[in-house]
Amino acid sequence: MKTAMKHNDMFYLVKAAQKRIEGHAHKTPVMTSRTLSQLTGAEIFLKCENFQRMGAFKFRGAYNAMSRLTADQKSRGVITHSSGNHAQAVALVGRLLGIKTIVVMPDDAPVIKRTATEAYGASVIGYDPGETSREKVSQDLANRHGYTLVPPYDHMDIVAGQGTAALELFDELNSLDSLMVPCGGGGLLSGCAVAARTMAPNCRVIGIEPKSADDAAKSFHSGILHTVTNPPTIADGTRTPSLGKITFPLVLEYVADMKTVSENAIIEAVKFLFYRMKLVVEPSGALGVAALLSGEIKPRGRAGIILSGGNIDGATMKTILDS
Amino acid sequence: MKTAMKHNDMFYLVKAAQKRIEGHAHKTPVMTSRTLSQLTGAEIFLKCENFQRMGAFKFRGAYNAMSRLTADQKSRGVITHSSGNHAQAVALVGRLLGIKTIVVMPDDAPVIKRTATEAYGASVIGYDPGETSREKVSQDLANRHGYTLVPPYDHMDIVAGQGTAALELFDELNSLDSLMVPCGGGGLLSGCAVAARTMAPNCRVIGIEPKSADDAAKSFHSGILHTVTNPPTIADGTRTPSLGKITFPLVLEYVADMKTVSENAIIEAVKFLFYRMKLVVEPSGALGVAALLSGEIKPRGRAGIILSGGNIDGATMKTILDS
Repeated sequence: MKTAMKHNDMFYLVKAAQKRIEGHAHKTPVMTSRTLSQLTGAEIFLKCENFQRMGAFKFRGAYNAMSRLTADQKSRGVITHSSGNHAQAVALVGRLLGIKTIVVMPDDAPVIKRTATEAYGASVIGYDPGETSREKVSQDLANRHGYTLVPPYDHMDIVAGQGTAALELFDELNSLDSLMVPCGGGGLLSGCAVAARTMAPNCRVIGIEPKSADDAAKSFHSGILHTVTNPPTIADGTRTPSLGKITFPLVLEYVADMKTVSENAIIEAVKFLFYRMKLVVEPSGALGVAALLSGEIKPRGRAGIILSGGNIDGATMKTILDS
Repeated sequence: MKTAMKHNDMFYLVKAAQKRIEGHAHKTPVMTSRTLSQLTGAEIFLKCENFQRMGAFKFRGAYNAMSRLTADQKSRGVITHSSGNHAQAVALVGRLLGIKTIVVMPDDAPVIKRTATEAYGASVIGYDPGETSREKVSQDLANRHGYTLVPPYDHMDIVAGQGTAALELFDELNSLDSLMVPCGGGGLLSGCAVAARTMAPNCRVIGIEPKSADDAAKSFHSGILHTVTNPPTIADGTRTPSLGKITFPLVLEYVADMKTVSENAIIEAVKFLFYRMKLVVEPSGALGVAALLSGEIKPRGRAGIILSGGNIDGATMKTILDS
């Protein structure tokens, strides 16, 4: 399977996204850890997207996608379906750009996620997940009200926006021998891999997934799209059912490998980041560190890790600190 | 009460300390927060000493004091009394410089503190706090074995080392209108105030203490040294009985004001740093943010805050996340 676009055109979209988000998204810091470097024998660089606005890389894609809407589209508003960081990103960008935002969430979504999304200014619309799907609800509402759909990952503006995380990292560090990126729907992973191809052609970009939600790893290794339903992982940002129509071919073409990590490794990684590095990182954001600490990946030379987000609720953090 | 040394000589000690620790201590990052700035109307800069080696500013003073010992002193070893960050700092510096370290801790000190200090390579010696004092135990051992005593704060090399935290901040930011510094024994506070006097003469340096351990605030406002015994504050780094012979006159001469914050304000500050800024900061380290969020201090212009450390145990963090 080949992607339709040429690489140069793809890379140009990431560069254009970088210009678009400049001054709006944070240029997040890159941190190093003597302990991690000593443990692995490689030089480890952590790109701290937990310090991004609203606490995760998702701001990049949402800002890129929404800032380039036409005035007419902006005036009608946007809609998305997500109960996670993408919802909050769309809500915050909507507030910044004066765009009305609607977020479709299942009726049984945690109250805390609904409240956080509403706090950023979005209107949340619930639906019964036993009766219909989030895609259908949002498409129906989009059709009826003229909202523009801003999907969580399967959209070239989203992919390009997320890729700016890696672009910034390469701008700062020049070369890397490998880059570990968490993978849910594959937006961040494919965007970063596109950026790496131009910025550091010898850099191996490796996607990391929980073992219990390994649809993307299976899809990558087989070349056939696998799906998973409500996987039982603590890494809630990776509970997406599958890679997308856009992200799957990109992952196949640009990503060097996919690795999986156990739930225990994820928990140990969040604890390591908390106790040793004083960083609050959500379970999905700690996948790269989990792969290192568990020995699933043994990097050489200079290795980058994207810490994709830091939005962890108190109950989850308490469970992790207890285990 | 006046300090014996002239200001220029004092400042020179801080500058010399900066050269001595260069390449050994981390140059810690300075972070900003839109939320904090919006809440206060001032521009807020956070100096992240929670990212310092062993997780707190204490590394600076310990390295400065221990690296300038004579070869003979180094070969005999050093001793200190502390069950907190200073103990770990002395232990780590000892390991780095090949100096034997002995830490005197009460028999009832938490096992976790003893273990952490031993993990850095120190020998821990317990004593019965009902029978004797830590000062007496360590002085006796120093006399008997020829150890050099490296006290936690009341020593000019320690004060000068801690002052490099502010020196670095001013090197990076040039001027500030105010600087909020946590106060326990006053080593960090007085060192930072000395640095500020030269680097930013108009900067008001303000010490922050828990209300329930307000000996330094009382001493500052009355000019008479107050002491407190085992104050019931969650900010364990500030449970020192009083300012010292060296730090008290320095605080009187160089510090513009002392403010106190409630236990609840400290807890809210740790939570704010965790949830909003994705930073792990220990209660003592969050005193400056507590003063801002509680309205105890209403800064104008450009305000700096020293986040002094990030060594919080899981049980304390769980209590805070629950409250």
